[in-house]
Order: sequence, then structure tokens, then C-alpha cells
Amino acid sequence: MLSGKVKSETANFLEKFFNPESVAVVGASRQQGKVGYEILTNIINAGYKGDVFPVNPRADVIGELKCYPDLKSIGRIPGLVVIVVPAKIVPEVMRECAKIGVESVIIVTAGFREVGEEGEKLEQQVMQIAKQAGIRVVGPNCLGIVVPTSRLNASFGGDLPATGVTGYLSQSGALLVAILDMAKARGIGFSKLVSIGNKADVNESDIMSAFADDPDTGVIAGYLENIVDGNAFVREVERISHDNPVLLIKSGGTSAGAKAASSHTGSLAAGETAYECMFERAGIIRCDSIKQQFDYIQAFVNQPLPAGSGVAVITNAGGAGIMAADSIERQGGLTFAKLSDETVDKLAAGLPPAASPRNPVDVLGDALAERYEFALNVVLDAPNVDAVLVLLTPQAMTQSVATAEVIAGIARGKPAKPIFACFLGAGKVAEAVKVLRKGKIPQYDSPEVAADVIKVMNDYVKWRSRPKRVVKLFPVNRRKVENVIERCLRRGLREITEAESKEILEAYGFVTPKGSIATTAEQAINAAKRLGYPVVLKIWSPDILHKSDIGGVRVGLNNDREVMDAFDLMMYRIPRKLPSADILGVFVQEMCKEGKEVILGMNRDPCFGPLLMFGMGGTMVEVLKDVSFYMAPLTAEEAKQMLANTKTYKMLKGVRGEEGMDINAITEGLQRLSQLVTEFPQIQEMDINPYMVGSEGMTPIAVDARISVEQV
Amino acid sequence: MLSGKVKSETANFLEKFFNPESVAVVGASRQQGKVGYEILTNIINAGYKGDVFPVNPRADVIGELKCYPDLKSIGRIPGLVVIVVPAKIVPEVMRECAKIGVESVIIVTAGFREVGEEGEKLEQQVMQIAKQAGIRVVGPNCLGIVVPTSRLNASFGGDLPATGVTGYLSQSGALLVAILDMAKARGIGFSKLVSIGNKADVNESDIMSAFADDPDTGVIAGYLENIVDGNAFVREVERISHDNPVLLIKSGGTSAGAKAASSHTGSLAAGETAYECMFERAGIIRCDSIKQQFDYIQAFVNQPLPAGSGVAVITNAGGAGIMAADSIERQGGLTFAKLSDETVDKLAAGLPPAASPRNPVDVLGDALAERYEFALNVVLDAPNVDAVLVLLTPQAMTQSVATAEVIAGIARGKPAKPIFACFLGAGKVAEAVKVLRKGKIPQYDSPEVAADVIKVMNDYVKWRSRPKRVVKLFPVNRRKVENVIERCLRRGLREITEAESKEILEAYGFVTPKGSIATTAEQAINAAKRLGYPVVLKIWSPDILHKSDIGGVRVGLNNDREVMDAFDLMMYRIPRKLPSADILGVFVQEMCKEGKEVILGMNRDPCFGPLLMFGMGGTMVEVLKDVSFYMAPLTAEEAKQMLANTKTYKMLKGVRGEEGMDINAITEGLQRLSQLVTEFPQIQEMDINPYMVGSEGMTPIAVDARISVEQV
Repeated sequence: MLSGKVKSETANFLEKFFNPESVAVVGASRQQGKVGYEILTNIINAGYKGDVFPVNPRADVIGELKCYPDLKSIGRIPGLVVIVVPAKIVPEVMRECAKIGVESVIIVTAGFREVGEEGEKLEQQVMQIAKQAGIRVVGPNCLGIVVPTSRLNASFGGDLPATGVTGYLSQSGALLVAILDMAKARGIGFSKLVSIGNKADVNESDIMSAFADDPDTGVIAGYLENIVDGNAFVREVERISHDNPVLLIKSGGTSAGAKAASSHTGSLAAGETAYECMFERAGIIRCDSIKQQFDYIQAFVNQPLPAGSGVAVITNAGGAGIMAADSIERQGGLTFAKLSDETVDKLAAGLPPAASPRNPVDVLGDALAERYEFALNVVLDAPNVDAVLVLLTPQAMTQSVATAEVIAGIARGKPAKPIFACFLGAGKVAEAVKVLRKGKIPQYDSPEVAADVIKVMNDYVKWRSRPKRVVKLFPVNRRKVENVIERCLRRGLREITEAESKEILEAYGFVTPKGSIATTAEQAINAAKRLGYPVVLKIWSPDILHKSDIGGVRVGLNNDREVMDAFDLMMYRIPRKLPSADILGVFVQEMCKEGKEVILGMNRDPCFGPLLMFGMGGTMVEVLKDVSFYMAPLTAEEAKQMLANTKTYKMLKGVRGEEGMDINAITEGLQRLSQLVTEFPQIQEMDINPYMVGSEGMTPIAVDARISVEQV
Repeated sequence: MLSGKVKSETANFLEKFFNPESVAVVGASRQQGKVGYEILTNIINAGYKGDVFPVNPRADVIGELKCYPDLKSIGRIPGLVVIVVPAKIVPEVMRECAKIGVESVIIVTAGFREVGEEGEKLEQQVMQIAKQAGIRVVGPNCLGIVVPTSRLNASFGGDLPATGVTGYLSQSGALLVAILDMAKARGIGFSKLVSIGNKADVNESDIMSAFADDPDTGVIAGYLENIVDGNAFVREVERISHDNPVLLIKSGGTSAGAKAASSHTGSLAAGETAYECMFERAGIIRCDSIKQQFDYIQAFVNQPLPAGSGVAVITNAGGAGIMAADSIERQGGLTFAKLSDETVDKLAAGLPPAASPRNPVDVLGDALAERYEFALNVVLDAPNVDAVLVLLTPQAMTQSVATAEVIAGIARGKPAKPIFACFLGAGKVAEAVKVLRKGKIPQYDSPEVAADVIKVMNDYVKWRSRPKRVVKLFPVNRRKVENVIERCLRRGLREITEAESKEILEAYGFVTPKGSIATTAEQAINAAKRLGYPVVLKIWSPDILHKSDIGGVRVGLNNDREVMDAFDLMMYRIPRKLPSADILGVFVQEMCKEGKEVILGMNRDPCFGPLLMFGMGGTMVEVLKDVSFYMAPLTAEEAKQMLANTKTYKMLKGVRGEEGMDINAITEGLQRLSQLVTEFPQIQEMDINPYMVGSEGMTPIAVDARISVEQV
């Protein structure tokens, strides 16, 4: 795992990759179409200022450059070595690098871990050489590195892209080619692009740290298929996101989804849940496609962040205005701004009578650039407008280019609020779109997309301004839990028994229902009398997890006879259904009559650690799926947010005259659970279900729990 | 309302608009930029074969055409008259049309209903003239009509578009300009385009009927803001959709959303619900933006429909393949096809060892066109593949143009299954994209979009193959309900009392709980004894709708004392909370102990009529919002589908060993409710909540109902 210190060292180190004093290409080729030719050509054509050393024993000269038989004969230590020789020769080249003291290597060559077992062995061999010699490696199986600012194009991804403030990292080389091509068409520039390939050494966290420290990078974007160390990644990106919007495409489900789950929480935590939690926590903006990522980049790079959620629309076509209004209202979190009377009056004074001075402001089909200018100026100054979307359809009188110029001019003069454009059409608005792009006004092909972009910016602003995370630690009996878990694991158990689950819960401050074990009907009746009627009977067996599924739970038993009947029926029926189950008796439990049933749960993701769950409890939990997840450890605000993310929350607050439940008691329960699973990595899955909660001042009761553990 | 006969007459009539023998432009102008100039020029430039008569008293000649001072002086009856004179002169021109016997008029002029009251009067005046003279009118306030097949461009929407099989109608003229421009850029052609403007005469249903009967039109698309006659529209489009995919953008919420609701169903039927139900029922494919509409058009126009849900992906970039797989799996209803062993073996035999012969088929970054050809042929032949998505990123070796040619060639040779392309990039794939377009292969800018398109096609196929709709009619006591409703309305009541609601329900075959009214505690106790304990007490007042909100419902009363206490408490407390309520006593009701609570409801949409609702019942209905809607009248299949669309359904079928509920009894309840609200348009809103349902064979009980009525 990376500590803060190491990270920053790696980030510093990456500077040597981004700005090397010289570059050697081992495997450089004279033959067009070969990767060794493409990379060398790209380095030269990009106008790289340092020395370039082609290395290939079968050539003396490549193009105008002297070619060296091996690294040693260069007579200098290259600042960066790019390896493109066949996979089986890579160890040899690495040994040569080690011998002459090379520090930075990009292994472009494929045929390692990605092709199977043999490739994986080869990769391990290569990395061992690197580790021993202290060589840092990008790749293998990557496209290379592109740094427009230092005119370095050590890749086979095509021409050097334009310079911009976006740092891009990609786990797929092939996609990066398409990304560069699309960026060119949309006028998006980059500070740095890194193809991270198999991430044998330098991984996504390293690159993102380096981007975060890079003065040339303002926005971080990337394509990832997996994440090496989830915990370190989250912590690092959470820090980074605050200053640099992080826009990621993440493809492929998580391995957690494939694992068979024994708890409700486990089965509800589907493949993507962990990533969703992680993105939310770290403030990462998730993109579903390259196109969407570019839509977002265009906004974040060129426009200020909106201060609030109010969006105003200006249009020369009523229909387009309605579509924009629909889109904005459909986006959760945005407000279709209500213009003040003062603003409406100002607009009405300057617009023709048939125009609409209310949001969406309709400047009419015959609006010239000047009318747009007037409207945009007034709307931008309006107090509850935080962002403006300007729509245009190219009608007979429309001055699309002049209007674009007007918008760009206003944006320069009033840089406080973001402006977005949606010029609908193609050929008729093509020139205008170029003007918008030059003027740094993000232009989108439909109001839907523009509304989505504004929403994403607004969400990011909200995320940035969230309160500082403070995780409360409760005084608990940690030693007790340690003992219980150790005892279980020693006995080879994966599931903690009901009695021991109670011990664990109580050690962490949960209250469990009173009750006792009975092995005969008489004992059960005596226990019931001690507790007071009504009572609950539960089958008592380490082998039965889903007790209610097999008739192992009977609630609301009101007298001795009902207890005796329930006991005898369980003893008669359950062994017939589950002959192999070891039945120890029944648990006679006080009945919690008042309150509502919720579930508190946890599922441990192999990459991101414990995910906490909250939702409506009882047997309906998997049917209604009214649950929410969050990463542990949890702050009080996050616990509250988990509640608010469910529909159950409304019910808990009290509907139709009912008294509300004690919300703080529930959030405390979630925080205690968070502490428990954070302190005990052995706990793999856990449900407290039902967690019976009552009105203000009543202590919730953890009625039933299921805890599964593993040796770690 | 339009009957089948009239519709087809209108449709026939529209032929005169689409293919007129001659066209007169009243208000033709010599002045560039004027609408009267644009339209005349567009008609001439498009190469229209019939005679063109400019009409303008202030000109003798416009361009090379003789200009007439008025319609009469033409000396012939023009087949189509396009009016572009100022609004206030339109009635005069219309009278002239009437005098000389013109049958078809397009009023392009704006300034009618859309500008307010005065304009509306003018429009009524114009339409009265038209009606008396039997003149059919498109518009006013529209862009005109464009018919590429007859080279008629009677519009100011720009150049004549390419000929294609898509008929387009638009309620917004300004948007149509952008639509034409975008269509040109994407190579989409049209059979006919109609800007319907204010729809004073010819409306969306007429145009769609005409398109449906038109041999040149295969796909119908449009942009609508409202619908004139919802019921006629649904019935007509349902018929049309079967043969012509109907792709509509609908913007703006419904008026129903704004109406204050008194029932659960009313408040849950938000603005868009009616339109959603209508789209589903009529098989309309809803589009959120023009871009999305074009994405869909491109597929429906050029490719066969998929026979099933299985999608296979071929890619030269692993990352893109994963993104496509994610997108397909995220789309409900699509299957990421599992290739058979035979197919995998065939692929493996022809692909390099590092390639992946499984879905997504990765042909590797160095794949030439030939390898794509091989893979596509094998995958298309695979038995459980119904559609193929071909991805390409432009890598060093990639032959993007040749690959596009190969795909187009295979599509021609194997036209049974649809093929879609997603060539990622911009400049580097531009040529190839042209080849794809020429070869009628839909090309999308991200796998996300392609997956969405395939899903929409698949949904349409499913809709087309749904069983024939048969609405069952139950024997009921219609007269009884008539009497009850009339009685209420005569008394000026909007809400039917509880006792009368029971009468209505019973008349339509619902079973209601036994019980009786009591005005003293003693009467209540006697009633309870007759029913048998436990019982329910409900406050009895015509003024109290949400009884439980004010403590007016007490359930589970077990003995005389509890009944007496409950009675006295209601009589004490409720008058203090609602001093103005007229309290008649309490209703003592048998308690339904067994079963689950669901809600059956109805909300009448002003445009589309009764929307039925099903969902989880009880007081939680508005919290959990686990409800589904459908238009009445309901078939048994649709009622079943309404259940299946909720999470409650799983619960009703029985979870965790519980016995399932009688599903058919619930669907019958929905059908009976459907019949009731269809037969009584006076019923505006209605809830049966809770509707207590039991296991197979048990009769459900309509425990409580709320019915509101209006004079119609």
C-alpha cells in the first residue's frame, strides 16, 4: 500500500518520464507500419528538443539519426528508454538498462500478463529486474506517453495532440487512439496522456497523484478497467478531486458481484455498488462513454463552476426551449430558475412584445445577434441564475456566427457564471460552432446533454463544499469481539452463531432482545413466563441461517400452550426439512412490539473494503430493495445521507400523522456498525435485521443478526 | 372525435396537399429575407413540376414568374394555396379562397392563437370561413410542407431534403429548420415533412394517418408539444405502429400534473404518467432529443428488426468491447449473447491465438478488414445472435475504410439480422463512416448509444408481437351506480361517501367488509359483537377523507371496553381537530386479518382518459411509490403486466417460504375497476385502498375506497 510519502515520491519521479533529457527507443525500426518505426517517427515529428537514440543492432542509421547496436554504446544514460522489442527479449533489454543505470522505462511491448500464465511469468521476471535496479516502469502492453507541453510523443497513438489542461490516463491503448482522434475533432487539448497498460509498476494512483501535482494539469480524465489498491486510490483521489475535477470511465463489473453472498447485504451489493460508492466518496465524476467524458471535459476546462443550481435558458425557438426546460427539470438537483419581476421587466422592456421574458426566455425566431446579446446580459446579471444555456436554431433571419461571437464576448466580460450553448443543426451552424469553440463556450448537440453537463458540474460543486469528514469513535469492548471471532475461526466456522453475534453486538453498544435458550418445551414456557408474554421462538442451530425460510421463527406467542405448540412443531418439522442440521433447541425472546423494522448491513468488497447498507428491514428487504450503500468508515452526515437516500426515510420521519422514529439512534447504529467492520477485517458480511427502531428517546434493538467471518 | 371513416377521408384529402397540381403563394415577395420570398424561391428551386402563381398586388413579375394581384385573376383554381400575408389580412384571403373554390390551404402566417386572446379570435374567424367553404387548412403559424418525392418545397425551412422513407411532422417550425439541417449532415432523407403549427384544422392524428397510408413512408417521426384528442390519437397510432415504427419527441408536461389531486392515485400520477402510458399502449417509441430520434431513425430505416434479444459484439480493442458489453447488459431486455461452443470453435480456428473467440469477439488491434469479415460472417450465422455490433478503433494497422466496405457487403448478402457499427474516433474514421452510411449501416459515436438503439428496436418487436387485446366485460349492476352518482352530484357532492362507495363497489362485483354505522358507544359495541372481535372503528363523516391522518381509524379492537374507549376518544378529539366536519358517527367493521394490502386506483387524465394504478397498499403507498400505471380499458394481460411492473408483485407471489397471493383475483379486481371507470366518465379519481388480498381461492376485500366525481 502506498503511504502519503511514497506517493509523492512516485509523482515526483514521474516528472522524469514527462520531461526526459533524452530518449532511447530500443527496437526502433526503419520499416513503416512497425511499432518501432511509428514511435521513433512520432518522437521526431513532434519536435522533441532532447536527443533521440534509436537502438537496433541491425541498422546503422534510421532516417537521419545514428542507430546504436545496444544501450551501452550510446555512451550516455538516456533519460527515458522506450522498449518495443518482442516480449521474450524484454528481460535482456531490462538487464542492460539496469547495468548502465537507466531510471525510467516505458515497455510498449505486449505479450505479458494479458496473454495468460506464461506472459505473467515473463512480466514477473521483468519486474524483478526493475525492482532490484530501482527502475520505474510504465507498461508493459501500453501505447506510451504523450506530453504536448514538452513536445514529447513517445507513443504510437498518432500525431501530437494540442496542448490543454487535461491530463489523461488510459488502461486501454487501443481506446486512446480513438480518444486522441476525437479530441482533435473537438478541439480538446491535453497536458499529458499516459497509457498505463498492465500497470506492473506505475499504476493509476501514481499517475493521478502526478497529475494533481502538475501545474499544467487542471482536469484529470481517464479510462480504467480495474483498480490496483482500492483503499489507497479512494483516499488519494478524494484529496485530488477537491482541486482537480476527476472524470473517469470505468468499464467492467467488480469481482464482488460474482461472489456468492450469504447475507441480504451481500446479495443486494451488486457488481457496481462498490464502484458507485467509491466514486461518490472520492468525488469522481463517472462517464459512460468517451463522448460523454468529452462533453464534461469541455465544460470543466472552459467554464467557471456554477455557484448554485439555478439554470436559465435563452432560445429563438419555443420548442427547443420547452425541451431544455424538460431536461433541466428531469435532472435531479438542478432548478429551472424563476426570474425575478425586476429581471422580467428588464427583459420585457428590451424584447419585442411577442417574446417571452420568463424562463425559458424566447427571443423569437427573428432574433438577431443583438437581441441575444441583450437577453444574455440581463439573464446573466439575474440574482438566482447560476448558469445560462443559450439555444439557437438556424432560422431564416438567424445570425448564427454573429450570435456565437456575442456569446463569447459576453463570457469574456462576465466570467463569473458559466455559459453553455446548444446551436441545433449541422451545416448551418458549423461556422458558429467553431466560433463558440474558439470562444471557450461549450456547445452540445442537444439540450438534454447540456442539462446533464450542468447537473454534473453542480453535483461537483456540492461535493466540494461538503463538510469535513469526521468519523466518531465510540468506546467499545474490542477485546471481547476479538475473542469471539478467534474462537469461531479456530472452530473452523464461517458463520457466527446467534448467541455469539449478540455478544459482538453488545460489545459495540447495540442492545439485543432479552431471552434465553430452551431445550425442552417446559424450559421454553418457563423462559417465556420470565420475559412476559407475548414472546418469539426461534430455532437454535449453527447450521440454519435463514430461519424464517424453514418455519424456524414464530412471533406473537401469547400463552403457555402456544409456546408449547410452537416448540413441538419446530422440533418435529425442521429435522425433516434439514436432516443434517444440528439443532440445539430454541431461543425464547422478548417480543419487540413497537417501532419499525430497518436493516443495517455490511458487505466487504475485495477492492474497496466494507460497504455499509441501510434500508427497510424485515423479510421484504430483498423484494423492495429500498436500500442505500456507503463506504466505511462513516461520518454522522454520511449515515444521515444513507437514510435520506431511501424511501424508508420518509416513513421513519412519520407519515400521515404517525410519530417519527429516532433518526439519530439509527445513524448512531450505522456508525457503530461502521466502526465494528472497520476494526475487524475478518467480518466479511453482516446483517442486523430487523433493527427495531422506535420514537425519539427509545433505544433501538438489534433483534437478529448474521455475521460471517474469514481468517485474514 | 374522428371516426375511422373521417380519418381515412382526411388522409386521402392530404394527398392534395402533398401532390398539388399547382401552387399559389399569396404574399409572395421580391424582397430577399422575407418569408414570401423564401417560400416562393424554395418552391422554384426544388424543381416543382406544377404551375406556380405568385400573388401580390404590388408586383407584376417576381423573378421569371408572372405575379397576380389576387387569386381570382389567376383564372384557375390553384391546387394548393400558401398564405404568408400578415395575420389581419388572412381572413380576407380565406374569403377569396372560398369564393374561387380553393380546397387546400397552408397558412404560414403567425400571430394567431399563440400570441393570446386576440390572435385566438382571429384564428376562429379564419377557421369559420374554412369550415363553411370546406377548405382544409394546415397551420396557421407553421413552416409549410415539404415533399421530396414530388419535389415540392412549400416551406421556408431551407433546401429540399433528400428523399427517404421517413415521414416527419413537427409542432415547432423553428425546430424543423434544425431538424432538416441535421438530417442533411447525417444523410437522412424524408418522404414528407409537415409543420403542423397551431393545428387549427389538420392535426397530428390526420397527418399520421396520411403517413400510414402513404406507400412512400415506412417510418413516422415527429415532434409534438400537445395532442388534440388523446383517445382518438391512441387508437389511431396503435393501429399505425404495427406497420410503421412511430418515433416521437414529446415535450412539456401534461395539464393533469398541475391539477390538485385528492387521491393517492391522483398524487402519484405525475405530469408525465399519462404520456408514458399512452406511448406504451400505442407502441410509440419516445425520443428525448432530435439526436436520439435520428439515431433511432437511422436504424429503423436501414436495418431489419432483430428477431430476438441476443447481441454479439466484434471489436479490435478490448476496452471498447467491455464498454459495449456493459452497455448491453445495463439495457433491460437485451441479452449479451453467449456464443455456442461450435461458434467459438469456428472463430478460434480462423482468428490468431491471442484473439478472443467469445463475446465480445476481440479480433485484436492488428486486425485487417479480412479478419473482421471472417468474424462477422461467423457471428452473424450463430444461432442465438439476433444483432451484431461491430466496434473499431483506428489503430496503426487498422483498415477502417476497407472494414466498412466489408461490413456493408456482408449486410447486403445476409440481410436477415441487423448490423450496427461504432467506429470510434473522428478524422481517422471519417471516410469509413461515409462508406458505412452509403452501405446503410447505422454508425454511432459510442457503444452506449448503439446499445440503446438495439434495445429500442427489440422493445418494438416485442410490442408488435403482443397478444391481441381482448377486454373482458363483467356482468355488473350499472343502473345502481348511475343512481348513486346522480344522487351525489345532485346534492353537489364531489366525494362519494363511504357507504355509497361500498354500494358502487358491490355493484361492480367487489366484496366489501361487513359492518354497520353506530352513533353511540353502545351501538358500536353491539355492532362489534354481531361481527365478532376483533373489529375496526372508522370515523363516519362526509367531510373527512384522510381518516387515518386525524386519528379516525382504530384497528384491532379486541373487546367491548376497547370499542367504547375508541369511540369516545374519536368523538372527543376529532371535533377539536376539525371543528367544521359533520360527524355522523362511526363505522364498525369486521377486521380483515389475513392477506396483504394492495391499492387499486384510477386517475382521469383530461387528454387520455382513465389511468389505472396498482401498487403496494396501506398508508405506505405514497412513501414507497411502488406503483404502476396503465390506460383503461384493461385486458387481463395488461392487468397482469401492471402487477409485474411493481416490486410488490414478488411479495405477492410469496417470498421466503410464504404462501403466494391469488394473482388472478387481483387482476380481476383491476379489470372490474377498469370497466367501472370506463363506463362512468363522471368518476374523476378513485382509490381502493387497502384492497386486502389472500391466497388462492380467497376473495379479496375492498376494505376502503375513495371516489370523486364530476358532472360531465
